[in-house]
Amino acid sequence: MELRKGLEDIAIKETSITFIDGELGRLYYRGYSIFDLASFSNFEEVAYLIWYGKLPTRHELDDFKSRLAEERSISDEIASLVKRTAKTANPMDVLRTSVSMMGLEDKDDGELITKSMKITAKIPTIISSIQRTRANLDVIEPDPSLSHSENFLYMLHGSKPSRERSRMLDVGLMLHIDHEMNASTMACLVVASTLSDIYSSIVAGISALKGPLHGGANSEALRQFMEIGSQENVEKYVLNRLSSGQRLMGFGHRIYKSLDPRAKIIKDYLSKVSKDEETQRLFDIATKVEEIGIRILGKRGIYPNVDFYSGLLFHFLGFDLDLFPTIFASARVIGWSAHVDEYLKDNKLIRPKAIYVGDLGKKYVPIDER
Amino acid sequence: MELRKGLEDIAIKETSITFIDGELGRLYYRGYSIFDLASFSNFEEVAYLIWYGKLPTRHELDDFKSRLAEERSISDEIASLVKRTAKTANPMDVLRTSVSMMGLEDKDDGELITKSMKITAKIPTIISSIQRTRANLDVIEPDPSLSHSENFLYMLHGSKPSRERSRMLDVGLMLHIDHEMNASTMACLVVASTLSDIYSSIVAGISALKGPLHGGANSEALRQFMEIGSQENVEKYVLNRLSSGQRLMGFGHRIYKSLDPRAKIIKDYLSKVSKDEETQRLFDIATKVEEIGIRILGKRGIYPNVDFYSGLLFHFLGFDLDLFPTIFASARVIGWSAHVDEYLKDNKLIRPKAIYVGDLGKKYVPIDER
Ligand SMILES: CC(C)(COP(=O)(O)OP(=O)(O)OC[C@H]1O[C@@H](n2cnc3c(N)ncnc32)[C@H](O)[C@@H]1OP(=O)(O)O)[C@@H](O)C(=O)NCCC(=O)NCCS
Ligand SMILES: CC(C)(COP(=O)(O)OP(=O)(O)OC[C@H]1O[C@@H](n2cnc3c(N)ncnc32)[C@H](O)[C@@H]1OP(=O)(O)O)[C@@H](O)C(=O)NCCC(=O)NCCS
Repeated sequence: MELRKGLEDIAIKETSITFIDGELGRLYYRGYSIFDLASFSNFEEVAYLIWYGKLPTRHELDDFKSRLAEERSISDEIASLVKRTAKTANPMDVLRTSVSMMGLEDKDDGELITKSMKITAKIPTIISSIQRTRANLDVIEPDPSLSHSENFLYMLHGSKPSRERSRMLDVGLMLHIDHEMNASTMACLVVASTLSDIYSSIVAGISALKGPLHGGANSEALRQFMEIGSQENVEKYVLNRLSSGQRLMGFGHRIYKSLDPRAKIIKDYLSKVSKDEETQRLFDIATKVEEIGIRILGKRGIYPNVDFYSGLLFHFLGFDLDLFPTIFASARVIGWSAHVDEYLKDNKLIRPKAIYVGDLGKKYVPIDER
Repeated sequence: MELRKGLEDIAIKETSITFIDGELGRLYYRGYSIFDLASFSNFEEVAYLIWYGKLPTRHELDDFKSRLAEERSISDEIASLVKRTAKTANPMDVLRTSVSMMGLEDKDDGELITKSMKITAKIPTIISSIQRTRANLDVIEPDPSLSHSENFLYMLHGSKPSRERSRMLDVGLMLHIDHEMNASTMACLVVASTLSDIYSSIVAGISALKGPLHGGANSEALRQFMEIGSQENVEKYVLNRLSSGQRLMGFGHRIYKSLDPRAKIIKDYLSKVSKDEETQRLFDIATKVEEIGIRILGKRGIYPNVDFYSGLLFHFLGFDLDLFPTIFASARVIGWSAHVDEYLKDNKLIRPKAIYVGDLGKKYVPIDER
């Protein structure tokens, strides 16, 4: 039996959802380049594309958008859970518990995608409620007349966002919708393969995404930039960090051995937009970290990944730092559920083995003779 | 890249926790035969063995038992969640949400095993509360002077159980503590490999265990026996079921190609104990299903697994049928956390791939031209 700890280079399924070209740094959703989608498409359209496999007609998209918009409200129980815990708990714990509660509350026999739409619609309401509750602000009800991203920022700040800002969030979310296999998607599949329900799968996905080696990296990356403080400190910081055996957060990827195209797209956006002073300073630090990081790690195929710049984007848009992984989750729900749906069309229980390396045939000794 | 859908025959780790000999139908915990442990040991001692790798001295066991017993109470929030949902929700959804809530509430920097002890101690309190709330009975506070299994049955029924009954539960739980890799343990490892927390791992384990191909099989197996109704109907039922392409629940296993030793142990217990009329009838049906099932499926290595008889055991002890998977979870928490602990000693992010089979290079067409 082969020991394959990280399951590196093992394919768990065939897919027609997402293709990553790790050498060239290219990403395709349903065959469409992420660069095209980031330029021409929007969050709802890409969600539709990922779930249904094709771009919607105008009628299909309108219908889909209004179905999503209708589902944004959360139950009183979830609202009160958020209220009770927002100030003290880790937001990913609150999100994991809230989605678990949604599963417990959902008595419909709906389709997997319908249920996933509900979850997708509700997560921004939970995230905004967490942030506003902590800041002692009133929670804002979702506005179904707004797009997904507009409404997200509206619920966060209490006023309608500019087109530029809602577009930036829209692109940021779009880039997080799917990424082929990864630890959280794998967690979802393992759960689904026992024929458990979609809420249980998504809860497992959130559980995995919480880890700092996965969805936790975006806030860690920003924390680094904040810690560095100014461009002059970058070189020393990076060298210190790497020579003490620590990792540079937001660098490195199992598949990309070149620049993650998602990092490139966010960086381009950030470089063009007019920034407040603090964001400009953090952005300058980040680009410097990128430069020096690539100088040292690039030859080993270790480059910035999406989390390197996404934290800066979410920060610019006014999200609290520790909420970043929940924003990641809010979009990835779509990829998780699409992969589960695809896997279940030809299900196989996911059940690896372990290689036993302990002793065998030990003799049970009564307790007083030990 | 190889496609390995179910990860069959792929080892995700080395282990010194559990060894399954699938050909001979043998199971070892930390090198001790499950037959010896079922005869001479008890739940707390085996929990200690699995977590710490050795059998405890009397002093260590006493200390361990009292630490476990102290942690049985659940928070007011979890108690009220259970009260609010027990009558309508799936018990595995309630358990998943409750453990997720424990994670959110736990602010200690405790060790992984300490946290897992808390979860292990509290799950029986949740399970008993669900059952009593549904029956409009008062919830019973845990009694720290009782052993884990005695207290479990005490909280369920409101009176101290007989030695025979608490021993049967004790053995039943012991047999469920670990089973090397399996879908739920895999879900825990995937989550842990991102360096997420232990509650998140356990929540993923519960999520996977919920599925009918895994922890859901014990109640399905009993439901079959109930549906069959009498011994005379067995042959026809089994033949019908199999010829219509349905599976016999409680039969078959990825690793065992002979009788699961856990099924054997429970069957022996059930055959010796004095049974009420209904249990006797169901037991007679079960043994007949076993006989006919093996006659038909045995040559393909498909034999009864633990779930075939465990449902009958839990039913005999007075648990509601849909609670069975939660009882399974209450014991498996120990195996889940032990495997996570072992994996984290040499962590590697679990990140498989997928083989892309869709189109590439599709051209984005504006919405009104679709
Ligand atoms: C994402 C990640 C876990 C993928 O790595 P992986 O495929 O499992 O590879 P490994 O962790 O085995 O790393 C391989 C080598 O690259 C090095 N490496 C990987 N990422 C590194 C980083 N960010 N900084 C410094 N070194 C890094 C490792 O130290 C290791 O070196 P070694 O072979 O000398 O021990 C890893 O790159 C990482 O931890 N990155 C930082 C966290 C992060 O940004 N996560 C978000 C991912 S989207
Ligand atoms: C547990 C289980 C999922 C493991 O199976 P697996 O290793 O994934 O193997 P597969 O599901 O691919 O089954 C292999 C073959 O055995 C057959 N088989 C397996 N279990 C069977 C059962 N309980 N009844 C009838 N046929 C069964 C399958 O139909 C399949 O036949 P095929 O090759 O003609 O299609 C499977 O045995 C099962 O579904 N059992 C019933 C549920 C159960 O008791 N689960 C608890 C396990 S502890």
